[in-house]
Amino acid sequence: MRDAVCLVSGGLDSATSLAMARAEGYRCSSLSFDYGQRHRAELQAAERVARDQGVVEHKVIRFDMGAIGGSALTDPGIDVPESGGEGIPVTYVPARNTIFLSFALGWAEVLGARDLFIGVNAVDYSGYPDCRPAFVDAFESLANLATRAGVEGDRFRVQAPLMHMTKAEIIRRGVELGVDYSLTVSCYQADEDGRACGRCDSCRLRAAGFREAGVADPTRYR
Amino acid sequence: MRDAVCLVSGGLDSATSLAMARAEGYRCSSLSFDYGQRHRAELQAAERVARDQGVVEHKVIRFDMGAIGGSALTDPGIDVPESGGEGIPVTYVPARNTIFLSFALGWAEVLGARDLFIGVNAVDYSGYPDCRPAFVDAFESLANLATRAGVEGDRFRVQAPLMHMTKAEIIRRGVELGVDYSLTVSCYQADEDGRACGRCDSCRLRAAGFREAGVADPTRYR
Repeated sequence: MRDAVCLVSGGLDSATSLAMARAEGYRCSSLSFDYGQRHRAELQAAERVARDQGVVEHKVIRFDMGAIGGSALTDPGIDVPESGGEGIPVTYVPARNTIFLSFALGWAEVLGARDLFIGVNAVDYSGYPDCRPAFVDAFESLANLATRAGVEGDRFRVQAPLMHMTKAEIIRRGVELGVDYSLTVSCYQADEDGRACGRCDSCRLRAAGFREAGVADPTRYR
Repeated sequence: MRDAVCLVSGGLDSATSLAMARAEGYRCSSLSFDYGQRHRAELQAAERVARDQGVVEHKVIRFDMGAIGGSALTDPGIDVPESGGEGIPVTYVPARNTIFLSFALGWAEVLGARDLFIGVNAVDYSGYPDCRPAFVDAFESLANLATRAGVEGDRFRVQAPLMHMTKAEIIRRGVELGVDYSLTVSCYQADEDGRACGRCDSCRLRAAGFREAGVADPTRYR
């Protein structure tokens, strides 16, 4: 059985990505980050998702992205927008997925895992540069130059199984695989109980996905 | 004046790399990491070096690499070796420079800096995969795909000015630029006052460098 490290944010996409890794036969360990994000209810959601899907180990790495600033998700001085605009939104967190995958790579190397799963998506997404196929490919190349394992020819793979799926397709696939979406939180400004605002970019994409998939939306709104 | 983010570990190499960035006319901000390393005296050294060289801001980001393990530098259960061996040593920290550069990238994007300086070296080094030119080039490619700035065509550069220098050349260049090496700590197991063991890989490379450069070694040994 091959090992994989799966990034799990507590949101809908990464819960599905984890389920797809398991369905492919990987023995999954999951990784979340406490990086000073506003939507801290996601961290509890990540742990619930990981436990529900029976991961080998769920790890949370803490660091302070707020010290760097520059994003509505980590800087209390920048408001979370309630309607989508043009270009890359203020909820973009500089270098976030690069940092997340770097930690996943380090842990994978220690565990002997060679597959990293990340729930990024280039279709129904918010325009973040670090959610594109070229980014994922570049990280995989880097991983194989950066590590002992890569140098020794035991190649890493960065898998983004949701990359070309619509939100509705993701939800349908997750339902097939038994993902319990009531455990997940997508809202950028969920309250402490994980109840969603229903208005931010992430809430709107999620709600539209359930509608289009014809699946009852289990999201708890406040 | 262009801004740069310079990784500063408290060691000899990064102090020189920072001085070279300044000599090239960059306005430098410096970044260190408190990642659970054994040689914590390096962190104080990093701050002294940054202050001595008059950086705009010195930032320390904290995270726990020990939670990942896998290295003699972060895992108390693995001894630091006192003689060099073949291949990649146990002092290799999985994905360390990838993680460090990722944070530097995030901060650079927020600051509007487009140059990252890292004091890695492929000549007199310890055999770490993430100190090679191919690694640095791959990270630069990644940086320009991962970020808002990169996507908008404002390219990042990852500069490793020490890459092809011997330790003696690094020291001579640093002396020319006024680097005060008495502020730096290279030892993998320095004591709380920053005094070096004189026996680990890093100590041996450093001492040989001063000898070869014909420069008095200011290292305080215990």
